[in-house]
Amino acid sequence: MTATTSAIAYARRERRRFVDELKELVAFPTVSADPRHASGMQRCAAWLADHLRAIGLDEASIWPTAGHPVVFARTKGVVDGAPTLLIYGHYDVQPEGARADWKTPPFQGTIRGDELFARGASDDKGQLFAHIKALEAYLATGGLPVNAVCLFDGEEEIGSPQLIRMLSRVAPRIRADVIVISDTRMPSPDRPALTYALRGALHLEVRVSGPTRSVHAGYFGGSAPNPLDHLTKVVAGLSGRNGAVGLEGFYDRVRTLSGEERRYMAATGPTDSEIVRAQGAVAPAMDRGYSLYERTTVLPSLTVTRVLADPNAGRAAIPAHASAWFDIRLVPDQRPGEVAELVRNRLSYAPGKGLRVSLRVGAGTRPVELSRTDGAARAAASAYRTAFGVEPVFLRSGGSIGIVAAFVDTFSIPIVLMGFGLPGDGIHGPNEKFHLPTFFRGIETSIWFMRNLRQAARSLPAMAGR
Amino acid sequence: MTATTSAIAYARRERRRFVDELKELVAFPTVSADPRHASGMQRCAAWLADHLRAIGLDEASIWPTAGHPVVFARTKGVVDGAPTLLIYGHYDVQPEGARADWKTPPFQGTIRGDELFARGASDDKGQLFAHIKALEAYLATGGLPVNAVCLFDGEEEIGSPQLIRMLSRVAPRIRADVIVISDTRMPSPDRPALTYALRGALHLEVRVSGPTRSVHAGYFGGSAPNPLDHLTKVVAGLSGRNGAVGLEGFYDRVRTLSGEERRYMAATGPTDSEIVRAQGAVAPAMDRGYSLYERTTVLPSLTVTRVLADPNAGRAAIPAHASAWFDIRLVPDQRPGEVAELVRNRLSYAPGKGLRVSLRVGAGTRPVELSRTDGAARAAASAYRTAFGVEPVFLRSGGSIGIVAAFVDTFSIPIVLMGFGLPGDGIHGPNEKFHLPTFFRGIETSIWFMRNLRQAARSLPAMAGR
Repeated sequence: MTATTSAIAYARRERRRFVDELKELVAFPTVSADPRHASGMQRCAAWLADHLRAIGLDEASIWPTAGHPVVFARTKGVVDGAPTLLIYGHYDVQPEGARADWKTPPFQGTIRGDELFARGASDDKGQLFAHIKALEAYLATGGLPVNAVCLFDGEEEIGSPQLIRMLSRVAPRIRADVIVISDTRMPSPDRPALTYALRGALHLEVRVSGPTRSVHAGYFGGSAPNPLDHLTKVVAGLSGRNGAVGLEGFYDRVRTLSGEERRYMAATGPTDSEIVRAQGAVAPAMDRGYSLYERTTVLPSLTVTRVLADPNAGRAAIPAHASAWFDIRLVPDQRPGEVAELVRNRLSYAPGKGLRVSLRVGAGTRPVELSRTDGAARAAASAYRTAFGVEPVFLRSGGSIGIVAAFVDTFSIPIVLMGFGLPGDGIHGPNEKFHLPTFFRGIETSIWFMRNLRQAARSLPAMAGR
Repeated sequence: MTATTSAIAYARRERRRFVDELKELVAFPTVSADPRHASGMQRCAAWLADHLRAIGLDEASIWPTAGHPVVFARTKGVVDGAPTLLIYGHYDVQPEGARADWKTPPFQGTIRGDELFARGASDDKGQLFAHIKALEAYLATGGLPVNAVCLFDGEEEIGSPQLIRMLSRVAPRIRADVIVISDTRMPSPDRPALTYALRGALHLEVRVSGPTRSVHAGYFGGSAPNPLDHLTKVVAGLSGRNGAVGLEGFYDRVRTLSGEERRYMAATGPTDSEIVRAQGAVAPAMDRGYSLYERTTVLPSLTVTRVLADPNAGRAAIPAHASAWFDIRLVPDQRPGEVAELVRNRLSYAPGKGLRVSLRVGAGTRPVELSRTDGAARAAASAYRTAFGVEPVFLRSGGSIGIVAAFVDTFSIPIVLMGFGLPGDGIHGPNEKFHLPTFFRGIETSIWFMRNLRQAARSLPAMAGR
């Protein structure tokens, strides 16, 4: 029996325990957006560091930050001639929302059939844990074929501000040849997929202010300027018509897709009807001849997500101020700063007497495109094929992972987005769940991936240069 | 000494006690919009009925309703040949809002200088109490010159739904010749005013629904319809441009003002700069040549007061649904039902694929115009002149009082809106207050008004027909 088949056998024997441990991990209430969960974050980080130490990793430590801590660990010694794999994941989760919408307690793992229900079960504790268990399977049997570094973020759901800020400083301690991240999806349990593109993201708040305080709509309706009214005009103007964004210059940098890539996408990606089913609504018409898969991945989007008027204003009041929040998704070669400037220019028109408009720009994330053909991508595709018995496809995602662009900027090494999530996992919503058969195949995919990476060492760019 | 001068002397002697009693009245937390205050409403109604009985009224009773109770009372016996005055007021109050914004506890009367601070001090407990104390002053001295009926509403701040529904049924028990309501304002303590017109009101909710649940703006931005986006277009379209409402036909029924009335309004009403100061913002430009006083009283208005997207949607989500609330103010001869139909017709355009639009129409209030010259109006003006030493003006208000239109429909008798509120009272906001010197003058105005009504009995329409 080879080291790899021993590791696979071990992982199969220990499945029940692995699930019990994952239930421990999802029980920590690690909502990074909520300051009240700070101690839950600390306890979860400590649990992870202890766990990594227990399975045999070295230097397992908690890096404090100005926000939530980062968990770091590295394998003992160095496997000569083997590449070093950086495993990135995040242990923070989205807010659980209204408890009444959950059929099981959000911070208590509950198994029903093949599914583990809990906040974070899929995004991202379960996916992250698949790699930890792959490491353990090797360490408990014949030893690892690669060097491994773990970097577990506590702020992915809020844009990874601390880790992105400290990344260039800690880069020398990481020294990796390949990065793997499992925080994406496959279309179904039998259709494994690697993600090779992410849209960028930009979050904006537009605020309109008017009267010094909210005033009575009866006494002053007709004479007082209404910030909320003007705000709706701003939003309506930005969002445009016919499904297109109404911001001048917004599409200028969008690349024209090659016929070859469109054909590849049409052959591998979700169909329009699959997307309509997934989003629970038919799509608005759009003038251009794009498929919905293309509209959500190679075209940018602008979504108004919230509008809020002065919460102190009564039901019959002209509110003193109102804000709208925008979620903008960007594609190559759009740049967050340039798009923010387009919005700022649009808002520079005089809003009308008695009103002021201001813009707040969040930290943007650049779009990312990864190779589908480099040594790491081939090693990953082959690992999926072995573990799932099916050839994986490479998909574009409409989503964004802030840290990926930062990795691209900091390390010139291959990045593999090896997702084990499923469309029905309900991430960010109530009743989030993780499909356990996919969890087990995910562990095996990670085991084969490490073996394949070792064999492909010479074809990896950083290794080739050593 | 006549009965009236005895009553005046009594009212002046007892001022301190009157204020102490008013402090008891404002201490009841009578927020009609909040079901948790139901017992406070009951206790306040009981306190009022006991108080009316104690000062000598008969039949003091609490009328239960499907909502909050109505307090009713009538003077004992009948003063032959004298008119019957219906005193309407309301003992419910607006929600107190954030306690942190209050400098004194909202449900504890606090005197600072000439002001009594408390929620409801001005709107409407203090103003209502002025009439109660006028009744007491007569009853404790030479007896009343008129018959009096008290009708104190517990739901004015939520549109008086129960009282309006029951009004025609209870009308025979009321049998009044004149109605007086003190729930309006004077421009300043030395500028007494009667209100002779109220705008009507119509509240609408427009709701746009899209995806069956909120979906991720990254995965589905570009393919999923956005209800909030469409809603902003609906709002922007309704509100129009240049300060005018953009709803076709909205101005069709608005009366053209006579030159005489415009001159009267210009001579008596607030100036543009007074309105700008009161609303805390300069007014948006408007194409037509109206003063701000005219724009807020003889022109209708449409105000979007709130926009809310699915509260379960995350910060990076396309919300499943979104609603906007509108406060529309109407002028003669606009009708709430017709205006709601104009909005409904506008919304009947297809909203785009994947979206549905619905409209919820609240109970509307018709606009009201009252006489400035009938016997009751003259009796009231004369009472102000005596109590304040200044000739009062007749003003239009941009606000609405739902019960007034119902009184117009049910009783064909004069209605006098005899306000003792001041622009700085801060009604509906934090730190509401009532100006005590105006409270005392209000009591004396009510005393003189009853005397004048008695003397003008023959000129009152209902009396003339007896």
